[in-house]
Amino acid sequence: MGDQATPSAPELAAMAINDGPCLKHPFSDRAPVRSIVCRPDGGAALAGNRVRAGGWVKTGREQGKGSFAFLEVNDGSCPANLQVIVDAGVADLSTLVQTGTCVLVEGLLKMPPEGTKQKIELRVDKVLHVGPTDPASYPIPKTKLSLEFLRDHIHLRPRTNTISAVARIRNALAFATHSFFQEHGFLYVHTPIITTSDCEGAGEMFQATTLISEAEKLDKELILNPPPTEADIEAAKCTVGEKSSVVAQLKAAKATKEDISASVSDLKKAKENLSRVEERAKLKPGIPKKDGKIDYGQDFFGRQAFLTVSGQLQVETYACAVSSVYTFGPTFRAEHSHTSRHLAEFWMVEPEIAFADLQDDMNCAEAYVKYMCQWLLNKCFDDMELMAKLYDKGCIDRLRMVSSTPFERITYTEAVQLLEEAVRGGKEFEKNVEWGIDLASEHERYLTEDIFKKPVIVYNYPKGIKAFYMRLNDDSKTVAAMDILVPKVGELIGGSQREERYEVIQQRIAEMGLPLEPYEWYLDLRRYGTVKHCGFGLGFERMILFATGIDNIRDVIPFPRYPGRADL
Amino acid sequence: MGDQATPSAPELAAMAINDGPCLKHPFSDRAPVRSIVCRPDGGAALAGNRVRAGGWVKTGREQGKGSFAFLEVNDGSCPANLQVIVDAGVADLSTLVQTGTCVLVEGLLKMPPEGTKQKIELRVDKVLHVGPTDPASYPIPKTKLSLEFLRDHIHLRPRTNTISAVARIRNALAFATHSFFQEHGFLYVHTPIITTSDCEGAGEMFQATTLISEAEKLDKELILNPPPTEADIEAAKCTVGEKSSVVAQLKAAKATKEDISASVSDLKKAKENLSRVEERAKLKPGIPKKDGKIDYGQDFFGRQAFLTVSGQLQVETYACAVSSVYTFGPTFRAEHSHTSRHLAEFWMVEPEIAFADLQDDMNCAEAYVKYMCQWLLNKCFDDMELMAKLYDKGCIDRLRMVSSTPFERITYTEAVQLLEEAVRGGKEFEKNVEWGIDLASEHERYLTEDIFKKPVIVYNYPKGIKAFYMRLNDDSKTVAAMDILVPKVGELIGGSQREERYEVIQQRIAEMGLPLEPYEWYLDLRRYGTVKHCGFGLGFERMILFATGIDNIRDVIPFPRYPGRADL
Repeated sequence: MGDQATPSAPELAAMAINDGPCLKHPFSDRAPVRSIVCRPDGGAALAGNRVRAGGWVKTGREQGKGSFAFLEVNDGSCPANLQVIVDAGVADLSTLVQTGTCVLVEGLLKMPPEGTKQKIELRVDKVLHVGPTDPASYPIPKTKLSLEFLRDHIHLRPRTNTISAVARIRNALAFATHSFFQEHGFLYVHTPIITTSDCEGAGEMFQATTLISEAEKLDKELILNPPPTEADIEAAKCTVGEKSSVVAQLKAAKATKEDISASVSDLKKAKENLSRVEERAKLKPGIPKKDGKIDYGQDFFGRQAFLTVSGQLQVETYACAVSSVYTFGPTFRAEHSHTSRHLAEFWMVEPEIAFADLQDDMNCAEAYVKYMCQWLLNKCFDDMELMAKLYDKGCIDRLRMVSSTPFERITYTEAVQLLEEAVRGGKEFEKNVEWGIDLASEHERYLTEDIFKKPVIVYNYPKGIKAFYMRLNDDSKTVAAMDILVPKVGELIGGSQREERYEVIQQRIAEMGLPLEPYEWYLDLRRYGTVKHCGFGLGFERMILFATGIDNIRDVIPFPRYPGRADL
Repeated sequence: MGDQATPSAPELAAMAINDGPCLKHPFSDRAPVRSIVCRPDGGAALAGNRVRAGGWVKTGREQGKGSFAFLEVNDGSCPANLQVIVDAGVADLSTLVQTGTCVLVEGLLKMPPEGTKQKIELRVDKVLHVGPTDPASYPIPKTKLSLEFLRDHIHLRPRTNTISAVARIRNALAFATHSFFQEHGFLYVHTPIITTSDCEGAGEMFQATTLISEAEKLDKELILNPPPTEADIEAAKCTVGEKSSVVAQLKAAKATKEDISASVSDLKKAKENLSRVEERAKLKPGIPKKDGKIDYGQDFFGRQAFLTVSGQLQVETYACAVSSVYTFGPTFRAEHSHTSRHLAEFWMVEPEIAFADLQDDMNCAEAYVKYMCQWLLNKCFDDMELMAKLYDKGCIDRLRMVSSTPFERITYTEAVQLLEEAVRGGKEFEKNVEWGIDLASEHERYLTEDIFKKPVIVYNYPKGIKAFYMRLNDDSKTVAAMDILVPKVGELIGGSQREERYEVIQQRIAEMGLPLEPYEWYLDLRRYGTVKHCGFGLGFERMILFATGIDNIRDVIPFPRYPGRADL
C-alpha cells in the first residue's frame, strides 16, 4: 500500500476510541474477547493479559516437526488476524490448522519476537472448542477465489476477507446515515414495503399476493375432495323436499311435540347441507376472476398490491407534518436488468425536508455524502486499506477528496453546454448530446471524472424528462431537480424540490396523462396547509460501490436478488 | 399528570443536550429554526432572539376585536407548541387561525406576561408563507378524533398530537436499537426481503411474483394483436414455398447474380416471418403452466419467491463468520388476523451472537430492553408525558421499573408449576395449563403482571412446541429457548440458542418430517467450522405498544397493513 493508505492522527485517534478492545465479552463471562488486534497498536498494549479468544482459522500451519502450530484467527471484528500458537500437547494440531475451522481458545497474550509482522500473539494453553472443517469438501479454501465464484456460495462468503470487510463498511455507512440524520433533527419513518400506490412510474413492480397460493390450496383441496356434481345437488334438494313433507305430514297428523321438533331439526340439517353443497359447487379451481379479469377483491388486501419502488410519496405525508424526516429501507424493481449496477432488491435512503428549497436540498445532500466519507476514514480505515490493496488503489484518496472538497454546482443547461464543447473538441459519446436529453451514464461520468474531477451537482432539468411532482421553475421549461454525480459510479443521488402549489401539480398530473384519483391523498397535502419541501434519494449500494471501488453491485449487498437468482 | 411524570435531574440534562435548539436551520439560511420550545426551560432562554419559525397551526383565535391573533404552532419537533402573536396589520388574520394552516413567520422571541403557561412567545412582524386550510373540508379538525377514525385519513394523521408523538417515540426506539448494538460491536446486516427459503414455518407467506402482471400484459397484447390462426401459419409456409421455388427457378435459369441474391433475401425474410408466426402461435394467455402446475421457472427469479417471515436463518450465515450481528427490517405474515396485536407487515429486530449460549442471549436481550426504556426516559420524556396523559397513566413508571429491575428468570417447568398453583388457588384460565402446552397470552400476562409484576424470562421449553433449529438440552425433552414476557403486551422477545451440532440438527429436521435439501446451506454452517451461537427476535411494534400503552398495533406503525387494508 502506498502513502495514501496511512491514517492521519485524528483518524487514528477515532479508530482507537471506537474499536478499542474490552477484555470482557459484553454479555458473557464465558464468551471470548473480541477486537484484540483491531487497534492502531495492533494489540501490543494487551501483552501480559490472559484472554479467551475465538474465531475462524484463516491459515494454519504445523511447525517444529509438528510440535506446535501457528494459526491466523479472525473473529470478524476487523481485517487483521490474531496470531495464535498452540503446542502439540494442548490439542490435536491437524484438526486446528485447516482453513475454516472454528476455535475457542484460552491463553496468554505475549509480545512476539522482534521483526515479525504481528504486534501481539496468543500462546494457548486451553482449547475449549473446535468446529472442524474437512478441507476436501470445504467450498471456500484458502486459495484466491473470484467474487463471481463466491456468489454461488452466498452462505459462506462472509467468511472471506473481502465480503467481511464489505459487511463492516456497509454497517458503518448505515450507522453513519442514521447518525447524520438524527444529529440534524430528522425522524426516521418506516414507509411501507407493500404498497397500493404506483405513483411514480419509477419502474416495473413486483406483485405481493396470496391469490396464487390460495388458488393452489383450493386446487389441492378440490382434488382430494371433488366439488359436488349436479346429481349431488339434486340429491340434497330431494332430501330437503322429503324432510319438508315429513314435517308437513307430522303437523297434519298432530303428532307429538317431540316428533315434530325432531323432524324440524332434520329439515334444518338437510337445508344446511344443501346450502353447503351449493356453496361448494360454486368453487372454481384457479385464480378467482370477475368479468374476465383477476378478482383482486379476493386478494389479501382487497386490491392489487406491489412492492414499493420508493418511499418518497409516503414519507412526504410525514414531512408535511413533522418537518424533517427520512426513510431507509428496501426498495424493488422487477426489471430484467443484468448489469453490474442494478438489483431487484436494494436499499435506499430518502430524506424529506419541509420549509426548504432546492438549494437547501443540495446543501443537505452534500453534507450527508461528506459525512459518510469522513465516517469511513475515521471508523473503517483498515477495511478501506484492504479495498485499496485489492480493488481500487485510489479509493482512500477519493474519500478524502470528497469529504473535503466543495461539490461543483451547475445547471443542466450549463452541463449540456460543457458536453457540447467537449464534442466539438473531439470527445466521442455513444449517445448524442442536446438540450432536452436525459444525461446518460457516459455524460455524467465525463462531467465528474474528466471535466471537474470531483462531485458535481447538476440542477434545473427539463421538465419533460422528470417526474410530475418536481417543482416547476419560473421559466416553465425546467423543474427544480438535482442529481449528484460522483467519480466511479456517476449518479449517486437524485432529488428535487416538490411542487407544493395545488393548481400547478394538478395541471402537471393532467399534462402527463395520469389519472387524478390515485393522487387525491397526495393532493390533500397541497390542499391543506401546504408547505415548500424537498428531498432526495441515495442508492445505498451505489454509495458502497463508490466507497470501495468494487465493480459489481451483487458483491456489496449480503443477499443479492436479480433476474433468475434469489438464493436463500 | 401525577408525580410519575416529573423527569429526574439526569433525564432533564439529557433532554437539554439532545433537544437543544440551534438558532439556524442546519442546511439553510432561509428555512425556519426548529425546536424553539423543546427544552426543559420551554425556550425561555431564547428571549430577545429574532427568529424565523414555521409549522402548522394547532389552534388559533383572533383577539382584541380582530386586532391580533394567537396561534399555537407546531413543527413536529416536540409535543409543545410555540405561541405566536400576529397583529392585524401584518397579515389577514382570518386565514391564519384555521387549524391545519401552515405558516412561516419571522419576529422577536419575548417573555410572555407573568402567569401564562408558555415560557416564550413569538411576536411576528413578517408572514412569509401561508398554506391555508378550508375548515369546511379539512378532514382532521381541532375536535378530538378517535385513533380508529384517523386510520381512514392515514396521510393526514401525522399532524395530530398522538401520531406525531408516536413517530418521535418510534424514531427514538429505532435509533436506540442501532446505538445499542453498535456500542456492543454488532454489525447491522440487511437480510433479504424477497426469499426462496420457507425454513421456519413461522406463518403464511406473501408471494412476490411477476407472473400475474406478465400474464396480464400478454393477455392485453393478444387482444390487440391476436395470435396467428392455422390459416396464417399455412399462408406463411406457403410464402416460404413460393419464395423457395423462385430461387430454384432463377438459379436454374442462370439469372443474374443480383436477381438471385434478391430472391434469396426474399426467401430469408419469408422464413423469418414463418418462425415469428410459429413462435407467436405458441403464446397462451394466462399464467404459464407446466405439467398442470404453475411454471415458476418463468417467474422473475426462476423459482417461487416469498416475502420473508424472519431474517434469522440468513443472518446466522453472518454470525458464523463475523460473530455478532443484527438485522432490523420489515417482515411479513399473510395471516387473516384481525386482532389489535397483528400486522401483515411489521418490523423486527434480530440479533445473533456467536460463541454465546442461552444465558448470554438472555443477558443481551435484557440489556437491550433496559437500554431502550432508559433511552425513552432520557430523550422522549415530553412525548411519554403525553402518552401518560392520554393513554396509560402508568407508562412512565413502567419504563422506570423495567430499566432498573433485574428480570425474573424461570424455567418453563417452573412457570407451569406456578400457573398450576394459581389454578389450584382459584385462578381461572380459558386454556388448560399442563406441561407441554404452548403458553397462551393469558398465562404469559398472569406471570408477568400478577405473579412477578416485572419482566419475566421463561426458558427451556418443551421441544415439541419449538422450531427445529433450537438447541436440544441434555434432558432430550426441552430446548434452549427463551421468551421475555412484559406487563401490558405479554411476549416481547423470543429467542434461543441454535443447534450447532451437525448430527443433532440433521436428526431434528428429520424428526419434524421436513425435507433436508432446502436446509443444506444451513447445515453447511454446522458442517464447516461450527460455532455455538444464539439470538432472539423483538417485534418492534410490540415494544412501542409496551412503551406507550397504546392498545392497537395499527396506530404505532406509519402505514399499517392488515387484511383488506393497505392504504397508500
